[in-house]
Amino acid sequence: MKKVTMKDIAIKAGVSKATVSMVLNKKDGSISAETKNKILKIAEELNYIPNGVARSLSTNKSETIGIILPDIINPFFSEIARAIEDTASKLNYNVIFCNTDSDVYKEINYTKLLISKLVDGVIFITGGKSNHPLEILQSNNVPFVLVDRDVEDQDNYCGVYCLNKEGVIQGLEYLISKGRKNIAFVTGNKGLKVSKQRIEGYKDVMSKYDMFKENLIFESDFTIEGGMEITEKIISENKEIDSIFYSNDIMALGGLKVLLRRGFKVPGEISVIGFDNINISNFTEPELTTIAQPIYEMGKQSCETLIDIIDGNAVNNKIYFKPELIIRGTT
Amino acid sequence: MKKVTMKDIAIKAGVSKATVSMVLNKKDGSISAETKNKILKIAEELNYIPNGVARSLSTNKSETIGIILPDIINPFFSEIARAIEDTASKLNYNVIFCNTDSDVYKEINYTKLLISKLVDGVIFITGGKSNHPLEILQSNNVPFVLVDRDVEDQDNYCGVYCLNKEGVIQGLEYLISKGRKNIAFVTGNKGLKVSKQRIEGYKDVMSKYDMFKENLIFESDFTIEGGMEITEKIISENKEIDSIFYSNDIMALGGLKVLLRRGFKVPGEISVIGFDNINISNFTEPELTTIAQPIYEMGKQSCETLIDIIDGNAVNNKIYFKPELIIRGTT
Repeated sequence: MKKVTMKDIAIKAGVSKATVSMVLNKKDGSISAETKNKILKIAEELNYIPNGVARSLSTNKSETIGIILPDIINPFFSEIARAIEDTASKLNYNVIFCNTDSDVYKEINYTKLLISKLVDGVIFITGGKSNHPLEILQSNNVPFVLVDRDVEDQDNYCGVYCLNKEGVIQGLEYLISKGRKNIAFVTGNKGLKVSKQRIEGYKDVMSKYDMFKENLIFESDFTIEGGMEITEKIISENKEIDSIFYSNDIMALGGLKVLLRRGFKVPGEISVIGFDNINISNFTEPELTTIAQPIYEMGKQSCETLIDIIDGNAVNNKIYFKPELIIRGTT
Repeated sequence: MKKVTMKDIAIKAGVSKATVSMVLNKKDGSISAETKNKILKIAEELNYIPNGVARSLSTNKSETIGIILPDIINPFFSEIARAIEDTASKLNYNVIFCNTDSDVYKEINYTKLLISKLVDGVIFITGGKSNHPLEILQSNNVPFVLVDRDVEDQDNYCGVYCLNKEGVIQGLEYLISKGRKNIAFVTGNKGLKVSKQRIEGYKDVMSKYDMFKENLIFESDFTIEGGMEITEKIISENKEIDSIFYSNDIMALGGLKVLLRRGFKVPGEISVIGFDNINISNFTEPELTTIAQPIYEMGKQSCETLIDIIDGNAVNNKIYFKPELIIRGTT
C-alpha cells in the first residue's frame, strides 16, 4: 500500500525529486514557471497529498485532537462531538473519538493510545472518576479541557460547564408559579457533581417555599430505561404528585412515555420537565419543556479553548454557560 | 509541550538512553534484571508512553482509520459510528470522524486530510455523489469500505449494505395482511440508491395487489422536519389514507408527531411504519413499528472488512444484511 509520492511526480514530469520538493514546498524561486506548472498539474492529476505525519514529527504537532466521551449514541454527547468536530475542522484539526461507557479503565487505555498518536490535546467528558487518566495527560504535557462534568475531589482543571443549579432553580420557579406543589425530582448518578448541583437547586427552591420533602428525590440512571423505571415507581408510590423534574432529557422522555402509557394527561395531571434540550426533546407529542444547555456553544468553546492552550494563548480556566428555560407542551 | 521521553527515564534511572531503549523495546538480553525492573518502574511512574507516530512512519501503518459520514447527530450514523469505534478499538485502531453534511466538497477535503494523516483506511458513508473523493483514495492506495449507501453510477466498490427492497416488501405485506389498502409511501432524496431500492419494493408489492397509485409516493428530506412537513401535506390532500410507510425512522417520528397532534388515532385510523430501528424508535408512545436494519452489525462488519483489507486478507466485496420487521405500537 503506497501513497502517491514526490518520486511518482518526478518520474512523470521528467525532473528530479528535489525539484518536485522545491515546488511543492514553495521554495521554487530558481525554477521556471513552465516546470512549476507542469509539476503542480501532475500533482493534481495524481491526487498527490503531502505527508502530514512526517511534518508532525518535525513540528511536534499532529493537528489532531481526541475526544474522550461516555457514548456517542447518547444525543447529548453526539451533539457536543459534532460541535467540537465542526470547530476543529475549521481550525485544521482532525478529531479522534473514543467511547468509554464512563469506565475509568477504558479512559486510561484511550488516554495512552491518544498520547502515543501524539494528539495535540484532549477534550475529556469524564465518567466522574478520571483522576488517573488526567494525571497521565499531565505527565506527558498533553493539554485537556473538561466539558459538562467535573472530576470528583478536583476542581482546578480547565473546563466548560453549564450553571446546573441555576437551571433547576429556573425550572422549579416556573412550575411553582403555575401552582404546582408536589414536585418529584429525579436525579442521575448522585456521585456526579452535575447531579449534586442539580439536587442543590431543588433543595434550595423547595425549602424556600416550605415544600421540601426528602422522599420526593429519586435516583436513577441517566438513560431512557432509567427514566421509565423510576417513573413507574413514582406513580405507584405517590398518588399526589403533580409534576416530575428529570435531571436530563433522555430520562424525561422515558418518563413521559410511561405517563402517557398509563393514561396520565400531560400536563393536565402531571407536568414534566427535562434538562439539556437535546434535539430530540421536541420529537415527542407533547414536546418536552426543558432547561436548555447551550450544547453546541459549549462544544465549540471547549474546542476553541483547547486549541488556544495548544497555541500557547492565555485562556479562562473555567467557563460557565447559562441555562435557559424552554417552555413547550409538557408543562 | 513535551511528552515523557526515554531520555527522562534514563536520567532518573542513571543509565544511558540506549539502555532504556533496549529495555522498552524488549531487546534486553544483555541487561540485568535489576536495571530492567528499575527502568520499567520509572517508565510507569513517569507515565511514559511510546511514540506511535515514529513507529507508524517506519511501518507505514498508523493504526488509525477514518469515518466519513453525513452527520454524527443523526442517530443512524451515531449508532454505526459507535459500532465501528468499538470494533476498531478491539483491534487496536483509533478512529477519526468527519461530518460532511453529505456535501461532496467537504468529503474531498476530509479525504485529503485523512490521507495526509496516513490513515490506514476509510469507512465512507457517502452523500451519493462521492466519485471524486473515492478516486483520490484509490490513487493513494488507501482502502475504503462503503456503508449503507452506494455511489451513483458505480457499484464495484467494497461495501456493507442492507437489503432495502426486501425490507419494504416485508413491511407492506404485513400492513396489507392487516387489511390496510390506502398506503402512502414517503421516500427520502430520490437520487440515493437506498431510496430507489425502497421505492421499488413499494411499487412491486402495491402493483401485485393492484393497489399501486403513483400519487401515493411522496418525497421529503430524511429528517424529522421532512417527516413533519410531508405528513401535513399527506393528511390534508388524502382523506382516505389508512397507513403511511416512511423510508426512515426519523421521518416516521416526525410524521407520528403530526398525526397525534392533529388528533388521529395511531394505529386506529392511520398505521405508521418506519425503517432503520434506531434506538429512539421506541422512545415514543405508541412505539414505532419499523423495519430493523442490523445497524450495529453493519458497522462492525464494515470495520472488520476494512481491517481485513488493510491486513491483506481476502474479503467479500459486497456484504448484504437482511432487514427484519419489528412490530410495535403504531400498526
